[in-house]
Amino acid sequence: MDLQFIFELVGTYFFAVSGALAVHDREHDVFGAGFTGFITAIGGGTLRDVLLDSYPLVWIADVSYLYAIFAGILTAILFFKIMSKLRKTLFLFDTLGIALFSVLGAEKALSLGMRPEIAAMMGMFSAVMGGVIRDMLCNATPILLKKEIYATACLSGAILVIVLQNLGVERNTNLIISFLLVVTIRLVAVRFKLSLPQLDWKK
Amino acid sequence: MDLQFIFELVGTYFFAVSGALAVHDREHDVFGAGFTGFITAIGGGTLRDVLLDSYPLVWIADVSYLYAIFAGILTAILFFKIMSKLRKTLFLFDTLGIALFSVLGAEKALSLGMRPEIAAMMGMFSAVMGGVIRDMLCNATPILLKKEIYATACLSGAILVIVLQNLGVERNTNLIISFLLVVTIRLVAVRFKLSLPQLDWKK
Amino acid sequence: MDLQFIFELVGTYFFAVSGALAVHDREHDVFGAGFTGFITAIGGGTLRDVLLDSYPLVWIADVSYLYAIFAGILTAILFFKIMSKLRKTLFLFDTLGIALFSVLGAEKALSLGMRPEIAAMMGMFSAVMGGVIRDMLCNATPILLKKEIYATACLSGAILVIVLQNLGVERNTNLIISFLLVVTIRLVAVRFKLSLPQLDWKK
Repeated sequence: MDLQFIFELVGTYFFAVSGALAVHDREHDVFGAGFTGFITAIGGGTLRDVLLDSYPLVWIADVSYLYAIFAGILTAILFFKIMSKLRKTLFLFDTLGIALFSVLGAEKALSLGMRPEIAAMMGMFSAVMGGVIRDMLCNATPILLKKEIYATACLSGAILVIVLQNLGVERNTNLIISFLLVVTIRLVAVRFKLSLPQLDWKK
Repeated sequence: MDLQFIFELVGTYFFAVSGALAVHDREHDVFGAGFTGFITAIGGGTLRDVLLDSYPLVWIADVSYLYAIFAGILTAILFFKIMSKLRKTLFLFDTLGIALFSVLGAEKALSLGMRPEIAAMMGMFSAVMGGVIRDMLCNATPILLKKEIYATACLSGAILVIVLQNLGVERNTNLIISFLLVVTIRLVAVRFKLSLPQLDWKK
Repeated sequence: MDLQFIFELVGTYFFAVSGALAVHDREHDVFGAGFTGFITAIGGGTLRDVLLDSYPLVWIADVSYLYAIFAGILTAILFFKIMSKLRKTLFLFDTLGIALFSVLGAEKALSLGMRPEIAAMMGMFSAVMGGVIRDMLCNATPILLKKEIYATACLSGAILVIVLQNLGVERNTNLIISFLLVVTIRLVAVRFKLSLPQLDWKK
C-alpha cells in the first residue's frame, strides 16, 4: 500500500481532530465542531488542487478521506473532555498534520510538473491554509500570522522535499526526512519560544 | 419551463435580499449592501461548482441569475426601512433560500455522477456557504456555528433528495417534499429554540 | 514588450507592498507580512481566473509574478519604518494597484468571450478581492465595505474599458484612459471624503 496514501489519510484525520477541537472556547454546537473539523481537514489540499486545476479533488474522488474526517470528528467529540484538558493535544495533532501535508503537497505539485518555487509554496499552502480558513471561519486571528515559527517550518519541509528529490533520494526516505524536519523545527520553536522578528520591533 | 430553473432564480433572489439586509447594524454604504448581497447569492453555488469542476458557473453562463441578484439587492435597498423593522423578514428569506439551494445542490451533484455522501455535502454547502462567506466578509461569527439547527436542516433536506431519488420518486415531487422538510425543520427549531448539544455542555 | 504584461507586474508589485504594509498595527512577524503581501497580490486575479476557469493561473504559468511579489514584500520590509510613517504611501500603492487590476481584469474577461456584465464584475473582483481576502485574513472589516468610494471606482473603470473597446478605441489608449478614471475617482473621493449613502442614513 502506498506510503503517500496512508500519510494523507492520517494527516486528514489529524487535521479533522484539531479543527473540531478548535471550537473549544466558543459557543459552537457539535455540528459546528464537525463543520470546522471538515473545513480544516480539506481546506489546504482543496485550495492547492483548485489553484493547480487538479481535478477531481482527492476527497471527492476517493471517499476514504471523508471517512478519515468523520473518524477525526468523532474522536474529537467523544474524547472532548479529556482532550481539551490536555492543552498539548491540539498542538501535537496540528503539528503532525502540517508536517504531513507540507511534504505531500510539495511532492504532488512537483509530480504535476510545477516549478520548484510553486511546488514549495503549494506544500506550505496545503499545510497551513486549512487552519487559516478555520480561523477565518471562527473569526480568530489566523495562527500563522501571530505564532511562533509555523508556516516557515512548513515551507522548510516543502523545500527539503524538492532538494532531496533533485538529489535523487529515494521517495519514501525523502518524505520521512522532510516530515521530520517540519516536526523538529516546530517543536524546537515552541519549546524555546522562537519567533521571527516582527516588523515594528524597533519602535 | 423547468422547475429547477425557476427555483434557482427565486432562491438566488432570496439570498441576495438576505445578504443585502445583513449589513443592517454595520456602517456599510449601499454598494457594500449590494456587494454582500451578491456574494451571499452566488457564494454557495459557486463554491459547489468550483469543488465539482462544473464550468461555466451558472451565473456566468446565464445572465438571468445576475438580474435576479440585482432585483434582490434593489428590493433590499428600496424597502430597507420596512424590512429592517420586520426582524422576521431576513429570517424568512434566508430560510427559503437555504431550503431551495439544499435540494438543488444535492440534485446537481447527483446529476454530475457524484456519490451520495458527496452529493449530500454539496447540497448543504450550496445552501450555507454563501451565508458563511457573507459572515466572514462582515467579520461576524458565522450563523451556522452558533444558531439553532441550521446547516443540519440543510443536510437533512439534501439527504432526503438522494433517498427519494433512489426510491424512484418523480423529480419535481422530490424537490418539493425535500424543500418542505428543510423549511419545516428550520421553522420548528427556531420556534422551539431547538439546538444541538454544545461540546462543552458538561462543564 | 506588451503593455499589459508590464502593467500586471507593476500592479502585482504595488499590491504586494500594500498587503505587506497592511500588517502595520498588528502583531505579525516578517513572515506574516510576506504572507499577507502574497495573498493580497494574487487574491483578486486568482479568484477571477478560478471563476472563469482560466488555467493555468497567471502567477503559476509565469514565474515573473512571483518575483514581482517577492520584490514588493522586500520593499515593504526594508523600508517599513519610513513607509509606515507616510500614511499616504499605503493608500497610493493600493490606489495604483486597484486601478491597474480593474482595467486588466475587465479586458481579460472580455478576451475570454465573457458578456459585458460579467467582464465589468470580473474587473472589479480582480481589483478589490485581494484586499478583501487580506482583510478577512487579518480579521479586519473589509475596506470596501466601509470606506469612501472604492469598489465603485473600480467598477467604473472596468465599465469604461468595455465601452471604449466597443467604440473601437485603440487598446493601449483604452487601458490608460480607464486606468486614469479609476485613479481620479478614488483620489477625488478621498480628497473630498465622498461616499455613497449608507443604508440606515434616515434613522
